[in-house]
Amino acid sequence: MHALPPQVQRQRLESAAAAAATTGLDALLVTPSPDYRYLLGYDAPPLERLTCLVIRPGERPTLVLPHLEEPLARHQLGTLADEIDLVPWEETDDPFARVGSLLAGAGKVGVQDQMWATFVFRLGRALPRAELGVASMVLAPLRRRKSAEEIELLRAAAVAADEVMDAITAEQLSGRTEADVAAEVRRRLVEAGHEGADWAIVASGPNAASPHHEPGERVIQAGDSIVLDIGGSRAGYASDTTRTAFVGEPPAEFAALFAVLREAQAAACDAIRPGIPARDLDRVAREIITAAGYGPMFTHRLGHGIGLETHEEPYLVESNADRLQVGDVFSIEPGIYVGGRWGARIEDIAICTDSGGERLNQSSRELRIVS
Amino acid sequence: MHALPPQVQRQRLESAAAAAATTGLDALLVTPSPDYRYLLGYDAPPLERLTCLVIRPGERPTLVLPHLEEPLARHQLGTLADEIDLVPWEETDDPFARVGSLLAGAGKVGVQDQMWATFVFRLGRALPRAELGVASMVLAPLRRRKSAEEIELLRAAAVAADEVMDAITAEQLSGRTEADVAAEVRRRLVEAGHEGADWAIVASGPNAASPHHEPGERVIQAGDSIVLDIGGSRAGYASDTTRTAFVGEPPAEFAALFAVLREAQAAACDAIRPGIPARDLDRVAREIITAAGYGPMFTHRLGHGIGLETHEEPYLVESNADRLQVGDVFSIEPGIYVGGRWGARIEDIAICTDSGGERLNQSSRELRIVS
Repeated sequence: MHALPPQVQRQRLESAAAAAATTGLDALLVTPSPDYRYLLGYDAPPLERLTCLVIRPGERPTLVLPHLEEPLARHQLGTLADEIDLVPWEETDDPFARVGSLLAGAGKVGVQDQMWATFVFRLGRALPRAELGVASMVLAPLRRRKSAEEIELLRAAAVAADEVMDAITAEQLSGRTEADVAAEVRRRLVEAGHEGADWAIVASGPNAASPHHEPGERVIQAGDSIVLDIGGSRAGYASDTTRTAFVGEPPAEFAALFAVLREAQAAACDAIRPGIPARDLDRVAREIITAAGYGPMFTHRLGHGIGLETHEEPYLVESNADRLQVGDVFSIEPGIYVGGRWGARIEDIAICTDSGGERLNQSSRELRIVS
Repeated sequence: MHALPPQVQRQRLESAAAAAATTGLDALLVTPSPDYRYLLGYDAPPLERLTCLVIRPGERPTLVLPHLEEPLARHQLGTLADEIDLVPWEETDDPFARVGSLLAGAGKVGVQDQMWATFVFRLGRALPRAELGVASMVLAPLRRRKSAEEIELLRAAAVAADEVMDAITAEQLSGRTEADVAAEVRRRLVEAGHEGADWAIVASGPNAASPHHEPGERVIQAGDSIVLDIGGSRAGYASDTTRTAFVGEPPAEFAALFAVLREAQAAACDAIRPGIPARDLDRVAREIITAAGYGPMFTHRLGHGIGLETHEEPYLVESNADRLQVGDVFSIEPGIYVGGRWGARIEDIAICTDSGGERLNQSSRELRIVS
C-alpha cells in the first residue's frame, strides 16, 4: 500500500462530508473496505469486531474501533489521527450503540456498500429512526475521478502487468498445465512489484470459452487458443490486462474471429470521450462483433472501472446510461467465446481525458503466436 | 481447498434446509462467503455481479449466478450440479428480481451474515413482503459442530503451524526486522501446505503490547519479548497459534508475568467441557490473571471459534452465555500487555469433546528463549 500525504486523506474526508451534505445524508458509515482505505489511507481487515468510520457534515470524522485495534490504527493513521476522534470499545461493550449515540438525530444514513449484512441489521436497530441506504451514492463519484497521482499509480501497475504478459508469452507454453503457467504469472507479478496477484486466468483450448475459467490441470497443446487475463494490486492500485495467444499458426477461422475482436476493441477505445454514455462504448464494440456474426458469443459487458478495486464504477454495460467523465479509468475488454472450442479476449485499461481515451496498457494486442 | 465427497455437501444442504424450516425461515440466501463454501464445497469470489444460493425447505437448492460464471460453477460443483437448479442471468438482467420471483410468498428470510449491504438493500426491495434477518441463526450452529473429517483437517493445519513456529523460534531473531521474520513465517506456512498465510504477527519489544500489531521495520534486539501469532488456511481450514519468545534471559519480572499467563491458559484449557458457558472459560483465565494483578492488561476476550474461518462462533467472551458443545473448535489465547514495554500471549486451538478439551496445537508453550 502506497501511503499518500496526510493532506490527500484530509481532503478526501472533507470531500466525503461535503458530498454527503449535498446528497442529503446525515452520515456515512464506513467499515473496512476499499472505501475505508480511500478515506483513511490504510487497510483494516474486515473482522467480526466492528470498526466503523463515521463521517458527518460539519463534524470531525469519528472512528469507532475495538480497543485492541487502537494502537495499530494510530500507527497507520500517523498525523491524521490528530484530526479524527477515536472511540475505542471494550470486548463487552455494544459498538452499535456507540454509533447510535453519535447519530441520535440522524435521518438518512449511507452505509458502505460492502458492509456485512449482520452489521447493517444491528446498526438499523441502533438507529431506529434512520433510513439506511448505500454510501456509494456519495463515495463512488469521488472515487471515480482519479487524481494525477492515482493515474500514475494505475499506469505503473499497468506497465508492470504488461511486462509480465510479454515475459510469459515469450516462453514455451505447450506441454505445461494451465495451473503451472498461472503460478508463474502470479510469481512474476509479485516480482514486478505487485503486493499480490489475486487471480491469473490461463484458459486454454475449450477452456478459453469460459470467461472466468479457473486454471487447472489441462495441459496446453498445439492448436489451443489461450486467454491470459492477469492482474493484481500494486501500491494499492489494481492492474488488469488480457491478451490472447495461439499455440502454433492459427487456422483462418480463428484469425478471422480475432481480427474482428481486435477491431471492436480498438473502436471502443477510440470512442472514449467525456460525456459519452457508458452503454454507448459497449455498443460500439458489440455492433462490430454482431455485424461479423459473433454477437451471441460476446457474452459479457465491455468493461468495468478500476482503481483501488479491480471492479468499481463506472461499469460499461448495455444497461448503464451514466456518462463518462474526465478521470474515469476502466477496462475495455470485449471477448468472443465459441463453446467447446476456443475463445479470445483483449483487455486494456483506459483513462477518459479531456481529449479522449488513453490506454495505460501498451503491450502488443496482436494474437501472440507461442510454441 | 480440500474437496469433500458430494454426499457431504448434499447432507449439508439438506441440514440447512431442515434447520431453516425448524427456525421458521422460508429461505436462506447465501452469497459467496465461508457459508457458501461450507454448503457448496467451493469458493466463489465475492463480486459485484450477484451469485446467490437460495435454500428453501422442501425445494431443490437454486443457484442464481452470472451467465459467465456458469461454466466455472458447473466445473467446481461436479456431480452436485445435478442436484441444484442453476439460474444464470445475463448482463442486462436484474438478478434481484430473479431471486424475488423464486421467493414470491416468502415471509422470513435469512441472508448470509457477510452479504454486502448493497445486495441486502436490493434484495429487500425485490422482496417487499419479506422480513430479512441473518442466516447465521441457522448456519452457525451447523458449522460449529465439526465432523471427524473437519477435525482432522484442523489438526493437520495446527500441526503444520506448530512446525513453522518451532522452525522460526529456532533461528536467531535479533538483528532482523519484524517484517523480515513475518515474511519468513508466511513463506514457511505455504511450504507447510497452507494455501495462504493471511497474517503473521511478529510484535517485538514495546510492539508486543499491541495485540494486533502489524510487523514493521523495527529491528528485534536483546531484551525484547516477541509475540508470534501465526496462521492461515490449509486445505480450506484455518490454523492459528501464538507463542511468546524472549531475546536472551528474561528479567524476573517478565518471567513472573509469563508464569501467570501460562497457568491461566492451561486452566482455561482444563476447564473445557460440554455445557460450560463460553463466558465461564473466559472467566477461568481472567480470574487467575486478575488475582496476580494483571487484570487490566488482559485487554481482549479469551478466544474465538475456528474452522473455515479464522474467527467464527463460538466466541469466548465475558458477554457470551452460550454453552459449549461437543464438536466446537476454538482458540484459547489469553494475553498480558504492558504498554510501552512488552507483552505475551499463548494460543492453542482446542476441541470440546465428550470427555473435555483436547488441544490441537502441541508445540511447547514455554517461553522460548531466542538469540
